[in-house]
Amino acid sequence: MALSTRLTERFGLEHPVISAPMAFAAGGRLATAVSEAGGLGLIGGGYGDRAWLSEQLAFVSPSSFGCGFITWSLARQPDLLDLVLSQRPKAILLSFGDPAPFAARIKDAGAALICQVQTRRDAAHALECGADVIVAQGGEAGGHGEARGTFTLVPEVADLIRQRAPQTLLCAAGGVGDGRGLAAALMLGADGVLVGSRLWASREANVGPKMHAAALAANGDDTIRSQVMDLARKLDWPTRYTARVLRNTYIARWHGREAELMKVADEEAAKYRKAWAEGDPEGSNTFVGEVVGLITDIPSAQEILRRMVDDAETRLKSFSIQ
Amino acid sequence: MALSTRLTERFGLEHPVISAPMAFAAGGRLATAVSEAGGLGLIGGGYGDRAWLSEQLAFVSPSSFGCGFITWSLARQPDLLDLVLSQRPKAILLSFGDPAPFAARIKDAGAALICQVQTRRDAAHALECGADVIVAQGGEAGGHGEARGTFTLVPEVADLIRQRAPQTLLCAAGGVGDGRGLAAALMLGADGVLVGSRLWASREANVGPKMHAAALAANGDDTIRSQVMDLARKLDWPTRYTARVLRNTYIARWHGREAELMKVADEEAAKYRKAWAEGDPEGSNTFVGEVVGLITDIPSAQEILRRMVDDAETRLKSFSIQ
Repeated sequence: MALSTRLTERFGLEHPVISAPMAFAAGGRLATAVSEAGGLGLIGGGYGDRAWLSEQLAFVSPSSFGCGFITWSLARQPDLLDLVLSQRPKAILLSFGDPAPFAARIKDAGAALICQVQTRRDAAHALECGADVIVAQGGEAGGHGEARGTFTLVPEVADLIRQRAPQTLLCAAGGVGDGRGLAAALMLGADGVLVGSRLWASREANVGPKMHAAALAANGDDTIRSQVMDLARKLDWPTRYTARVLRNTYIARWHGREAELMKVADEEAAKYRKAWAEGDPEGSNTFVGEVVGLITDIPSAQEILRRMVDDAETRLKSFSIQ
Repeated sequence: MALSTRLTERFGLEHPVISAPMAFAAGGRLATAVSEAGGLGLIGGGYGDRAWLSEQLAFVSPSSFGCGFITWSLARQPDLLDLVLSQRPKAILLSFGDPAPFAARIKDAGAALICQVQTRRDAAHALECGADVIVAQGGEAGGHGEARGTFTLVPEVADLIRQRAPQTLLCAAGGVGDGRGLAAALMLGADGVLVGSRLWASREANVGPKMHAAALAANGDDTIRSQVMDLARKLDWPTRYTARVLRNTYIARWHGREAELMKVADEEAAKYRKAWAEGDPEGSNTFVGEVVGLITDIPSAQEILRRMVDDAETRLKSFSIQ
C-alpha cells in the first residue's frame, strides 16, 4: 500500500515519512535504509565531528538522502554545511537555532530547506526564512525539544502555513511511532511525519544492544525531559531546550541537582563519556520519546515503514466504509 | 453528518463527544447544551460547593447528563456523589485521585464510571477499578493535569485496554478543539473525545467576557503549566498535578517564586479571589489549554459540535477516495 500526500509528490517518495537526524544514532546506514524503503533518510549532523560525518556520507547516494544539523552547533562550524551540500542532498534540516544565516546557501545548492520548530513563533520565523518544509516537533519527542504538544502544535502551524505560505509543507514530529501516529498526523493537517524513536529502535541505527534493551523494557511513563546530560557532556545547549530520555540511575541522581552536578562537572563528564562509550543505559542516557511505550521490537527500517504505512492506510480507509 | 463509534453506540449519542467537567465553567447550562447537541454533557462538580451543585442539577434532565468530580476533593465530601446519583446521571467522571472508593457506588446506581487518567500506570489502575470509559488526558489540556502528551498516551492506553479489558471504551482529552483533533483521536485508537477549552469558549460556559477575550487574543505558545494559582487559592492539590493557564501578570509575578508566594499567602489569596470574582484575566487565571491557538470565536456549544463532527467526517473520508 502507499499513501500519497504533497510530501511524497514534492520529494518523489513512496511514503510520507522522513527519518529524524538523530545525533549519533542516525548515520549513513539508517538514512540509506529509510530512503531505500521509500522514505527520506536523514543523517544526523550532530555536534560537528567532521571525520564521522564524512564517514556517514560515504554510505549514501547523491540525491537520495538528506542531513540534519543542530543549528547553534552548525553556526560554530559552518563549513560542515558545504561538506554535506557537495554530496547533493535532497534536503537539509535545521533545528534548535536561527535558520536565517544558512537558508540561502541551502536553497542555492538545490536542496530543500526543512526547518524543525517547537513553537508557533519559530514556525512563523521559519516561513519568513523561506522554509520548504516545516517540521512541528512536540515535546513527546525523544532527545532535544521543548514543551508544546504535537497534538496542538501541528494544526496550529497548519493554520499559519495556510495563511502565510500555503505552498510550504508540514510534517509532524514527536510521538509518531506507528500507523496510528501517521494517520493522526495526516488528520491534524500534516503532509507527512518525521520519525525518531521508532527508527532509533531499528537494526540500522547506531545504537547499542543495552540501550535497545532498556527501551524495550520501558513504557511511555518512564521518560523525562532534563538538562543534566548536557551539563555532564559540557554541551552549550541554549537553556530553552531540554532532552527527553529514559529515567535511570543517572537521572535519579542528578535531575533537580544541577548546581551540585556543576561542582563536580569534570569528574562527572568523564564518567558519563565512559558510560556512553560502553553503551551503558544507567550511567549515560537513552534518548527516546514517550512513544517508547509503543515499541516492542527492533526490526529493520524497511519493516518499520511498511507496518506504519499499511496500518495508517487501513485505519484511514476504515472510516470511509461506514 | 454523524460519526458512529463504540462510544455513540454505548451511550446512545449522536456524536462521540463528551464535554469536560470543568470546575466553575461547566455548569448545568453547558452540560444541557452539549447533551441537546448530541454529545454527553458533564457538570463540573468542582471543589464541593453543595449549593452551587444543586443549582446546576436543576438545569439538567435525568438520564441525559453526567457529572465529573475532582477525586481527592470528593473524598472529603463523599455525600456530594449521592446528591448527583439521586438525579440519575448517565455517567460519573472521576479524575485526580484514586477512583477505587467510589467505583461500586457509581456502578450500583446504574451510572457509567468514567476515569480520567494522565499516565499509563493510572490507566491500568482504572481498569482494575472497573472503569467503563477511560479518558486519556494529555498535558496539552487546560486546567489540571500532568505532563504526558495526548499523541502518545492515547495509543498506549488503547493497547493496554485491548490487552486487559477490551470492552472498555477510550476517549482522548487534551488538545481536541476541532474536527482535526476529533479525527486524529479516532485514528490514535480512541472511541471519542472529551472537549474542554473549546467548550469553555462557548456561549453556554460560565466564563466572563474578559476571560474569553484573553483566550481569543492568545495563541498556543501563550500557556503554561503552573501551581501558583492553587497555592494562592489554598487548594490542597497533590503536587503531581499542575494547571495549564494563560501566561499573564500573575504568572509572571509568581511562577518560580512559590516559596515567596507562600510567605504572603493570606494577602495574595484575598487578592486572587477578588480578581477571580471580577473575571480579571491578569489578577487571576484563565484556565485553557494549548488548543487556545485554534479558537477564534465564542459560538454556541451546538455550533462547536456541528463544526467538529462535520469537519472530522470530511477529513476521514478524504483519504478513502485516493
